[in-house]
Amino acid sequence: MKKSVVLAFSGGLDTSYCAKYLTENLGYDVHAVTVNTGGFSKEDEQELKLKAEKLGVTSYTFIDAVESYYNECVKYLIFGNVLKNNTYPLSVSAERTVQAQNIAKYAVEIGATAIAHGSTGAGNDQVRFDLIFQIMCPGVEIITPIRDLSLSRNEEILFLKNHGYEMDFEKAKYSINKGLWGTSVGGKETLTSKYNLPEDAFPSQVVKTEPSDLEIKFKKGEIIGVNGEKFSHPVAAIQKIEELTSVYGIGRDIHVGDTIVGIKGRVGFEAAAATVIIKAHHLLEKHTLSKYQQTIKSQLSDWYGNWLHEALFLDPVMRNIEVFLNDSQKTVNGKVFLTLHPYRFVLNGIESENDLMSSKFGSYGEANLAWTGEDVKGFTKVLSNSLSIYHQINKS
Amino acid sequence: MKKSVVLAFSGGLDTSYCAKYLTENLGYDVHAVTVNTGGFSKEDEQELKLKAEKLGVTSYTFIDAVESYYNECVKYLIFGNVLKNNTYPLSVSAERTVQAQNIAKYAVEIGATAIAHGSTGAGNDQVRFDLIFQIMCPGVEIITPIRDLSLSRNEEILFLKNHGYEMDFEKAKYSINKGLWGTSVGGKETLTSKYNLPEDAFPSQVVKTEPSDLEIKFKKGEIIGVNGEKFSHPVAAIQKIEELTSVYGIGRDIHVGDTIVGIKGRVGFEAAAATVIIKAHHLLEKHTLSKYQQTIKSQLSDWYGNWLHEALFLDPVMRNIEVFLNDSQKTVNGKVFLTLHPYRFVLNGIESENDLMSSKFGSYGEANLAWTGEDVKGFTKVLSNSLSIYHQINKS
Amino acid sequence: MKKSVVLAFSGGLDTSYCAKYLTENLGYDVHAVTVNTGGFSKEDEQELKLKAEKLGVTSYTFIDAVESYYNECVKYLIFGNVLKNNTYPLSVSAERTVQAQNIAKYAVEIGATAIAHGSTGAGNDQVRFDLIFQIMCPGVEIITPIRDLSLSRNEEILFLKNHGYEMDFEKAKYSINKGLWGTSVGGKETLTSKYNLPEDAFPSQVVKTEPSDLEIKFKKGEIIGVNGEKFSHPVAAIQKIEELTSVYGIGRDIHVGDTIVGIKGRVGFEAAAATVIIKAHHLLEKHTLSKYQQTIKSQLSDWYGNWLHEALFLDPVMRNIEVFLNDSQKTVNGKVFLTLHPYRFVLNGIESENDLMSSKFGSYGEANLAWTGEDVKGFTKVLSNSLSIYHQINKS
Amino acid sequence: MKKSVVLAFSGGLDTSYCAKYLTENLGYDVHAVTVNTGGFSKEDEQELKLKAEKLGVTSYTFIDAVESYYNECVKYLIFGNVLKNNTYPLSVSAERTVQAQNIAKYAVEIGATAIAHGSTGAGNDQVRFDLIFQIMCPGVEIITPIRDLSLSRNEEILFLKNHGYEMDFEKAKYSINKGLWGTSVGGKETLTSKYNLPEDAFPSQVVKTEPSDLEIKFKKGEIIGVNGEKFSHPVAAIQKIEELTSVYGIGRDIHVGDTIVGIKGRVGFEAAAATVIIKAHHLLEKHTLSKYQQTIKSQLSDWYGNWLHEALFLDPVMRNIEVFLNDSQKTVNGKVFLTLHPYRFVLNGIESENDLMSSKFGSYGEANLAWTGEDVKGFTKVLSNSLSIYHQINKS
Repeated sequence: MKKSVVLAFSGGLDTSYCAKYLTENLGYDVHAVTVNTGGFSKEDEQELKLKAEKLGVTSYTFIDAVESYYNECVKYLIFGNVLKNNTYPLSVSAERTVQAQNIAKYAVEIGATAIAHGSTGAGNDQVRFDLIFQIMCPGVEIITPIRDLSLSRNEEILFLKNHGYEMDFEKAKYSINKGLWGTSVGGKETLTSKYNLPEDAFPSQVVKTEPSDLEIKFKKGEIIGVNGEKFSHPVAAIQKIEELTSVYGIGRDIHVGDTIVGIKGRVGFEAAAATVIIKAHHLLEKHTLSKYQQTIKSQLSDWYGNWLHEALFLDPVMRNIEVFLNDSQKTVNGKVFLTLHPYRFVLNGIESENDLMSSKFGSYGEANLAWTGEDVKGFTKVLSNSLSIYHQINKS
Repeated sequence: MKKSVVLAFSGGLDTSYCAKYLTENLGYDVHAVTVNTGGFSKEDEQELKLKAEKLGVTSYTFIDAVESYYNECVKYLIFGNVLKNNTYPLSVSAERTVQAQNIAKYAVEIGATAIAHGSTGAGNDQVRFDLIFQIMCPGVEIITPIRDLSLSRNEEILFLKNHGYEMDFEKAKYSINKGLWGTSVGGKETLTSKYNLPEDAFPSQVVKTEPSDLEIKFKKGEIIGVNGEKFSHPVAAIQKIEELTSVYGIGRDIHVGDTIVGIKGRVGFEAAAATVIIKAHHLLEKHTLSKYQQTIKSQLSDWYGNWLHEALFLDPVMRNIEVFLNDSQKTVNGKVFLTLHPYRFVLNGIESENDLMSSKFGSYGEANLAWTGEDVKGFTKVLSNSLSIYHQINKS
Repeated sequence: MKKSVVLAFSGGLDTSYCAKYLTENLGYDVHAVTVNTGGFSKEDEQELKLKAEKLGVTSYTFIDAVESYYNECVKYLIFGNVLKNNTYPLSVSAERTVQAQNIAKYAVEIGATAIAHGSTGAGNDQVRFDLIFQIMCPGVEIITPIRDLSLSRNEEILFLKNHGYEMDFEKAKYSINKGLWGTSVGGKETLTSKYNLPEDAFPSQVVKTEPSDLEIKFKKGEIIGVNGEKFSHPVAAIQKIEELTSVYGIGRDIHVGDTIVGIKGRVGFEAAAATVIIKAHHLLEKHTLSKYQQTIKSQLSDWYGNWLHEALFLDPVMRNIEVFLNDSQKTVNGKVFLTLHPYRFVLNGIESENDLMSSKFGSYGEANLAWTGEDVKGFTKVLSNSLSIYHQINKS
Repeated sequence: MKKSVVLAFSGGLDTSYCAKYLTENLGYDVHAVTVNTGGFSKEDEQELKLKAEKLGVTSYTFIDAVESYYNECVKYLIFGNVLKNNTYPLSVSAERTVQAQNIAKYAVEIGATAIAHGSTGAGNDQVRFDLIFQIMCPGVEIITPIRDLSLSRNEEILFLKNHGYEMDFEKAKYSINKGLWGTSVGGKETLTSKYNLPEDAFPSQVVKTEPSDLEIKFKKGEIIGVNGEKFSHPVAAIQKIEELTSVYGIGRDIHVGDTIVGIKGRVGFEAAAATVIIKAHHLLEKHTLSKYQQTIKSQLSDWYGNWLHEALFLDPVMRNIEVFLNDSQKTVNGKVFLTLHPYRFVLNGIESENDLMSSKFGSYGEANLAWTGEDVKGFTKVLSNSLSIYHQINKS
C-alpha cells in the first residue's frame, strides 16, 4: 500500500510543484486540500479542482471554512479590536491558523502519514503550518519540498514542464493573499523600508468618490445589521461592508512587524471591512464598557493578537482569553454611524440602550446632576492623600 | 495685612468673575497668573494683562511654559505614542497638569495662603487642579467660586456688570481650548453620543487640497528636522509641522472617554501636528526597537497616558516610566516620509541607520540568509513541544 | 409611618451605639442585619439576636452567607492564587464586599429608605460599604453615626449606659476579625512600622508540634477532598483544613499596604487554611497550566485582588476576569501533598492526570525524547536572529 | 596555524570530555575558561587549573565575575523582588547568562574561531549558551560534543580513561550548582512530580536551632549593612547574610517551571540569603513606594525574570527595565528587622526616613488626621459614579 500525504494546496506554483514532486519523486498518494477562508469564489473552486486533477493527485477536497473562520477567530479579533502594531488586522496570520487546523483534522481523519505544505524557509507561514501540525498530529511527518530543496522559481517551472504540467507561470508583480478579513499585498516596495506601494498595486481601486453614510448594528459585539438590512450570519454582513467600503480604497496601509523567524518584515494590505468594523466596534465599546473593562480587554487583546500572529493559537490561554472577550460583549449593543470618503471614513457617533453616556447623570463639563462640588472636594482630598504624603515625606 | 490668593487666570468669564469676586467679596489680594502652554500669542498676552488690570488684581504674571511643557510632558507622550483610547493626544489633560504645577510653584514662591481656579463641578479640570495643589502646597486653601456657588453664566455676567466690568459676554458656539499639543472643541454635538461636529466647528479649516510631502527627522525620539530644516528645540519643529499639516484639516476626531468624575465624556479635537508626529514616531520605532521593547513600552505608555489623564502626574511611578521611555529611545533615529492630503496623511516609509529591517539578514518571505530551512524545522519542533505535550495529555 | 433603616450589625460597641442612636435620636425603625462570612457560630447567632433585641431594634436578621461568600468570591481568590502584596489573602476586603452586598439586597427587599453602618472615618471599610450601597441602592441614604459624629469610645459607652444598655465595654487588646478566609489581628504593634505582633496576640495558638501529612484533592481548581475524605461543598473542606493547620500556627504574617483612603496601613493576620490552600493550588497549576496561562492569569489575578481590595467588586471587569479564571481551571485536577510543621509547611509534590511534566516526553536536564540536539540548534539559531541583528546593527 | 576554541570549563565530566575531545579528535587549541559567579573558592580555582592542564589545554583562565554578576544582574533581581513562579530566585539562569557573556567576550578578545560548551540536549543551559554566543559572536562556530554525539556518561569516562585522564568519575547522588544567589539541587526526587528532596540532599545542613535577630540596611535598594556592620560592596554583605542564614536551612524549596525547550522541569534549591534579602527588600518597598510604583514594578519584574530565565538577557528591553528599576529605588532606604528560626524566618518590621506610614497623617483604622468623614463621603460618592451609572443603565 502506498504512503499517503495531505497537501495544503493553493493552486500556485509552489503547491503545484509539491503535488507533482510528492507523487512522482516521493511516490505518495497525494490528497490535495484547499481551505477557503474567504479568498476563493465558486469559479476558483472549479479551477482548483481541475488543476489538482491535472497534477495527478489521488483526491482533491475543497473545504469551505469561511464561517468557522469567523466563529473561531475573526469574531474574537473584532471583540478585541485587534490591530497588530496598531495597524494590521492580522488577516494572513488568522487564515493560516485556520487553514492549518483544517488540514490537520483532515489528515487525522483519513489517516495520512504525512502532511506537506509549500512554504519557503523565509517567512512566517512555515512556522504556523509546522507548529499546528506538530501539535495536532504529533506522529505525522511534515514535508516541505520548497523549503527543503531551496528551490528557485525557475527550477520549479522546469520540473513541472518536464512532467507535462503547464500553467500560467508568469510571476505577478505583487504577491496577493485574499481572505474574509483582508488582502495582503507584497512586492518591490515592501522589501524596502522607505517606499510605499503604488496605487495600482492594490486589487481594489477607488471607484466611488461621493461620500455615503454607513450604519452598522451590533448585538453582543457581533454585526447583525448593515444600513438597516438584517444578516443571518456576520460573515454575510462583513462581505456586505467590504462591498460598500472597498470602492473607496479604505483600509490600506503597510504593516511593519517582527516576524516569527526574527527579522523585521513589511507587508502592504487593504482591509476595508476589517478596518471600518474594528473602529466602529471600538467606538461602541467606549460608550458601553467600564473603564477597567477597556483597560484589561485592551491588554488581553494585544496578547491575543501577538500569539495568533506567532502561531500559538492552540495555547489554552487563547481559549481563556476568548471567554473573557465573549463575556465582555454583553452590553456591546447598538448602532454605529459612519460616513465613507475616498481613502478614509469618519465615525459620527453611536446609539445604544447600553450607552453609559446618559445625560440623566450629568453632562461632561456642563452639569453635575449626580454629585456636588462638595463631593468632588472630598474626592480630591482623599485621592490626593497618598501623593501628598509621598511628597511631604520625600521633599528634597 | 491682606490675605493673598493666586488665581489661575485665562481671561474668560469664569476666571474674570473669580478675580472680581475674590477681591471684592472675599477681600483678597489677587495675584492673577496665566500659564501659556502654546495657546496664547504675544497679542493674547497683552490683552490678558489689560483684562486682569481692569479687574483690579494686585499683580498679573504671564508664565511662558511652552518649552517646559514639552520637556516635562509632551516629549514623553511622543516617546510613548500616547493616544488615549487610541484616539486622543491628551492635550487638555497635559496642559492642565503643567499649568497647575506652575501655579502651585508660584503660590509657594510668593507665600500665598490660597489658590483659586475657575473650574465648575462638572469636569476633569477641577480634579487636576485640586489634586496638584493639594499635593504641592498641602497647607494652602483652594477656592473655587464657580463650583462652590454653582453659578450660572448669567449670574456671573450680572455680577461683573454690577462691578463695572465689561467684556464680550457672548458665549461662543463651541468651547475651544488651544495648546501646543492640540485644540479641543466641545459643544452641542459632543453633548450627544450620536452626532459629529460640523465642519465649521473646527478652528483650522481646510485651505490646501494639493498633496504635499513631509519629512520628519528624529534623534533619540525627538524631532530635530522638518523637510530638511533643522530646529534648535523640538517645540519650534512641532509648530512648523502644525503649520504644514493643519491646512489640510488633519487630526480631527472625537474622543469618548471615562472622566475622572465617573461619567462618560465626549470631546472633539483637532491635533494635526500631534497626530502626524505620533504616527511617524511609532513607525520609526517599528523599524528600530525590538519586539519586546515595543510590547512593554506600549503597556507602560498606556498607563502613563491614563494616569496623566487622571491627574496622577505627580505619582513617582510616572518618573520611573519616563526614564524607561527615555532609555528606549536610544536607537529611534532617522527620517520618516509622509504625504499629506486633505483630512488624512500617508506614512510612506523610513530611513534609519538603526533600521533592523536590513536585507543583509534576509528579506521577509523572500530569502533566508541568516538561517536555513533545517534551522526553522528545529525551531518549530522545539517551539511546539509544550503545546504538543499539552494537547496529548489533555486530549478529550 | 416611621422611616426604616437597615443597620449592618456586628454586636460590637460601634454598631450597638448605632442601633440605639438610630432608634432614639433619629426615630428610625431599625432592621439590624448580621451577615455571617464564617466568623460566627450558632451560639454567636443567638447572642447577637439577644443583643439586638435588647437594643430595641424593630427586627433582627442573621444571614448565613458562608457558601455564597465562597461561591462568589473566595473561589476566585483560590483560582487566582490571590495574595495581596504577595502576602495577604484579602480576607477582610472580601468579607466586607459580600456583607455589603447582602445588606444592600436586604434593604432593597424591605424597601428601606436608609442604610447605616458603624464604620469610622479612618479605614477601608467605610469605602467598601459606601460604594456598594451607592451602586446597588442609588436612592437610599447612607448613615454613619460614628464617622459623622467623630465619636470617641467613651462617648459611645456613656450614651449606651444612659439609654440603659449594658454590655462588656472593655476594649480588647487586639482588634480581631474572623471569617472563613482568615482572621485579622490589629493593635499596638501594627500601628508601628517596626514591631511584630507578640505570640499571644493570635487567636490560634500552636498546640501541635509533631509534623503531619496533608493531602488536598482538587477538581477544576476546587477542593473536593482532604486526606482522603470527600466533601460535598468546598466550604466544609476549607474548614477541615483550617482545623488541621491552625493548630500549627501556620499562615501568620503582617500585611502592609495602601489603603483606599491613601495612607499606608498595617494589619496582622492568621490564615492557616487560606495560605496552605493557595500555595497547594498554585503548585498544582505549575504542573497543569501552560506557561502563558500562568503569566496572564497571574496578571489578571493581581488586578482582581487589587480591585476587590479597593471596593470595586461590582465593576463588570470583575465578572469578565471570573469567567477567564473559571475557564483556566479545566485541567487543574489532582492531589497535592504537604507536610505541616509548627509555623510552616512544606509542599512535597503533586499527582495529576493533567500533569504536563510527563517523562514520556523527556526529563528536564536528563533526556530529550521529543527532540534532538539538532532541533535545539535550529531553535536557538532562529530564536537568536532578532537580537543578533539588533546587536550587529547597533554595535557601538 | 591551529584553530582555536574557547571552552566553558567547569571541571566536571562533561567539560573534561570536551577539553580532551576538542584537542585530540578535532585538533583544536583549547582555551579553557571558568567564570566564577560565586561557587568557586580559591582552592577550587587551583584545582580547576590543574585539571585543565592535565587535560592538555593550551591555556586556562579563571575569570572572577562575582562582582560584575551582582552589578549587572543580581542587583536587579533584588530591585525587582524576582522569584520565578513566586518561588525560585533564578540563580542558575542568572549565572549561565553572566558566564556565557564572559566567555563570549573572551572569545572575541582572543579571536577564537569556535566556542564549546558541555551542555546536553535536555536542558535550558544549552539554549542560554547558544543564544548569547550567537548574539555576541555571530560568526563564531558553536561546538557542543555532548549534545552532538548524544554521549552517555560511561562513554565519556571510557574516552577519558583511554586518553590517560583519571578523575573521580563517581556520579554524585544529586547534581549541585552553587553560586552567589543560590544552590540548585537536582536528582531522583526532582525527576518526579510527587516527591520532595530528602533532608540530606541539601548541601547546607541545619546546625543552629536557637532563633537570632538579623538587621539588614538598604540604601537605594542595595544592601549596605548587616547587623550594624558596614560593607563596601553588596557582594560581601550577601555572603555575610548567607553565612548567618544558611545554618538554619532557610530558603529551601522546589521550583517547577516551564523550560525553554518546552517541557516542565523541576529543580530543588537552597537560597538562604536570596530568599531573606528579597523578602526584606520587598517589605521595605511596601513602606516606601507608591501603590502604582509597586504595581508596575511587579509586572516589569515578572517579565524581567521570565526573559532572564528564557535566555533573552541581551534584549534591549532588559536595559530599559533596569533603568526603571534603578529609578524606583531612590526612596528604598532603611533597616529591615528579621528573626531567624530553623527552616524559616519572620519579618518583624522596618525603620526608614522614607516610610510613608507616618502617624502624622493618621493611623489606619484609628484616626483620620488628614481628612474628614465628609471628605470620604464625597470620595465614595464620586468614586461610585461610574459603577452606579453602569448598574442603573444595565439593570436586568
